[in-house]
Amino acid sequence: MMKSIVITQPGVLEIQQREIPLPAADEVRVKTIYAGVCGSDVHIYHGHNPFARYPRVIGHEFFGVIDQVGRNVMPSRIGQRVVIDPVVSCGHCYPCSIGRPNVCLNLQVIGVHRDGGFSEFACVPASNAYVVADAIPAHHAALVEPFSIAANITAQLRPTTDDVALVYGAGPMGLAVIQVLKTVFGVAHLVATDRVAARLQRATECGADRCVNNQAANVSDYFDEYGRAPTLIVDAACHPAILPQAIELASPAGRIGIMGFSDAACTISQQAITSKELSIFSSRLNSARFPQVINWMGAGKLNPDALITHQLDFDQVDVALHLFENEPAACCKILLEFPA
Amino acid sequence: MMKSIVITQPGVLEIQQREIPLPAADEVRVKTIYAGVCGSDVHIYHGHNPFARYPRVIGHEFFGVIDQVGRNVMPSRIGQRVVIDPVVSCGHCYPCSIGRPNVCLNLQVIGVHRDGGFSEFACVPASNAYVVADAIPAHHAALVEPFSIAANITAQLRPTTDDVALVYGAGPMGLAVIQVLKTVFGVAHLVATDRVAARLQRATECGADRCVNNQAANVSDYFDEYGRAPTLIVDAACHPAILPQAIELASPAGRIGIMGFSDAACTISQQAITSKELSIFSSRLNSARFPQVINWMGAGKLNPDALITHQLDFDQVDVALHLFENEPAACCKILLEFPA
Repeated sequence: MMKSIVITQPGVLEIQQREIPLPAADEVRVKTIYAGVCGSDVHIYHGHNPFARYPRVIGHEFFGVIDQVGRNVMPSRIGQRVVIDPVVSCGHCYPCSIGRPNVCLNLQVIGVHRDGGFSEFACVPASNAYVVADAIPAHHAALVEPFSIAANITAQLRPTTDDVALVYGAGPMGLAVIQVLKTVFGVAHLVATDRVAARLQRATECGADRCVNNQAANVSDYFDEYGRAPTLIVDAACHPAILPQAIELASPAGRIGIMGFSDAACTISQQAITSKELSIFSSRLNSARFPQVINWMGAGKLNPDALITHQLDFDQVDVALHLFENEPAACCKILLEFPA
Repeated sequence: MMKSIVITQPGVLEIQQREIPLPAADEVRVKTIYAGVCGSDVHIYHGHNPFARYPRVIGHEFFGVIDQVGRNVMPSRIGQRVVIDPVVSCGHCYPCSIGRPNVCLNLQVIGVHRDGGFSEFACVPASNAYVVADAIPAHHAALVEPFSIAANITAQLRPTTDDVALVYGAGPMGLAVIQVLKTVFGVAHLVATDRVAARLQRATECGADRCVNNQAANVSDYFDEYGRAPTLIVDAACHPAILPQAIELASPAGRIGIMGFSDAACTISQQAITSKELSIFSSRLNSARFPQVINWMGAGKLNPDALITHQLDFDQVDVALHLFENEPAACCKILLEFPA
């Protein structure tokens, strides 16, 4: 038997005893070591994720070791240290055909549409389990998935060393984006904005050149003073007021990336977009970007420690979800540790 | 002396006698042969273009012959048949540095910020006067500029032969986009929508595979029946209700191009964008795309005749502007002819 963290229905979390599953054909079974808590987990808990069905084992950021393989999978994979890409796609629809499995017409996200990694064992498609080099410690590997989100949006935004970047939100997503923009792409100047001082402190550790607390100051004043408008803006805070402000602030020919799932009405003016010929990209999950992130991590280009604020035993998941939701100053990425 | 069409102030059009100008250093003087009427000319006439200053010689789509050159320009250019790129840029700001002179921080558009081509003679920067091969007739060459708008937005949208395209609006811009999408890029299937039957007839002539009159039918019903959602959408009609509908209709991983300058509030939901990972591109003028369009025209890939509905003497400009604004069924591209 094994223990699994299950949202049985919106608002109800249970740690259940379940049968240890057997991997089906083309699957591997992963013994979970670390799993990260994400906003989506909290949304599923509260019943705010339109894709989730219940009961559901949540968790889509996880690292572990393959301990069993299904039919068609080489037994030599047993013992591999792996991170799991949560995107399960059909491979033959239009988005899949153009390399966008993350918006597959038949998308199944591990931890959302199907059971996830907040469990002592999880069976996943073998092709979703990416090997991690021994040099990457387990608690870093658990952050490959959140960094894959940053890899995905930056792949669309194509940052350059000429870019002046502005990142809204210094939570886990914002910090991952900041690191990728500064350390991987080397943007010229990066400004982070948030309303929580402790989060901006972490943004500085992640490479932000300047932080603006938008509770106390207006980020547009900063750019007026700086003398260049932002050429690349990422909204990792996801409030509907941000996109209109980003459109207003952006340099002509600027690119804006949005990552939020708010269904709140957002009012924009097309003139403000076309007169500057802005482009607006959106990003959901990741399109096969795990190998890229694992390479970046192996090359020392990412600093996962700057995101990790807590490591808790998995059976403290209720504490973890509460912290994540209510303590934005103290809390960034929380890792749940599963028994060896 | 020469005659020039001048908007002296919003709502007042005069045909004035003016001195024939002398080209300054790095300029050429063009004897205008044909000039096309565009919506922007009408907007300047009505005082609805925020960039225009008065009095202004309008006209930014024009073909003619170089009859005089300024200092630093080779006299051998005299006699060249040329089309004029209206984008005058500084060459050293951020947008210029990344190949986007069309949103230069110091942008001067011929016919908007400075005097244009609705004049017997016009002085323009020599580098804005592109030579047109003799094989391209004058009345076709006059349409290089409107096709450059289509070249500019499609360069951002990167159409492929797998794309299912939807074009809103079958006016001059929509028709130019339809031709470029079908004939140059060979998109798999192209649907045009408009509320004027005669314009949809022209869309068919320009290569649309299917036309939907959205006065009578719902374009979303068509795509339900067709079985594939549009992967590439261009809004060449520019009503603020279109972008939200385009977001709704688009395939996951779809691209949307907007060309409109409406400052009306447009209400969108970010969830609708990010859940499908849509990209929204905007396009203004053109970024050095004249050579490309001249090549397409020379290779017979464009059909300017399908757009031209009227050819009028330039002194009938008031008739032309009235037609353009009030007769969308009868009127598409109007050429003004200047005396030889």
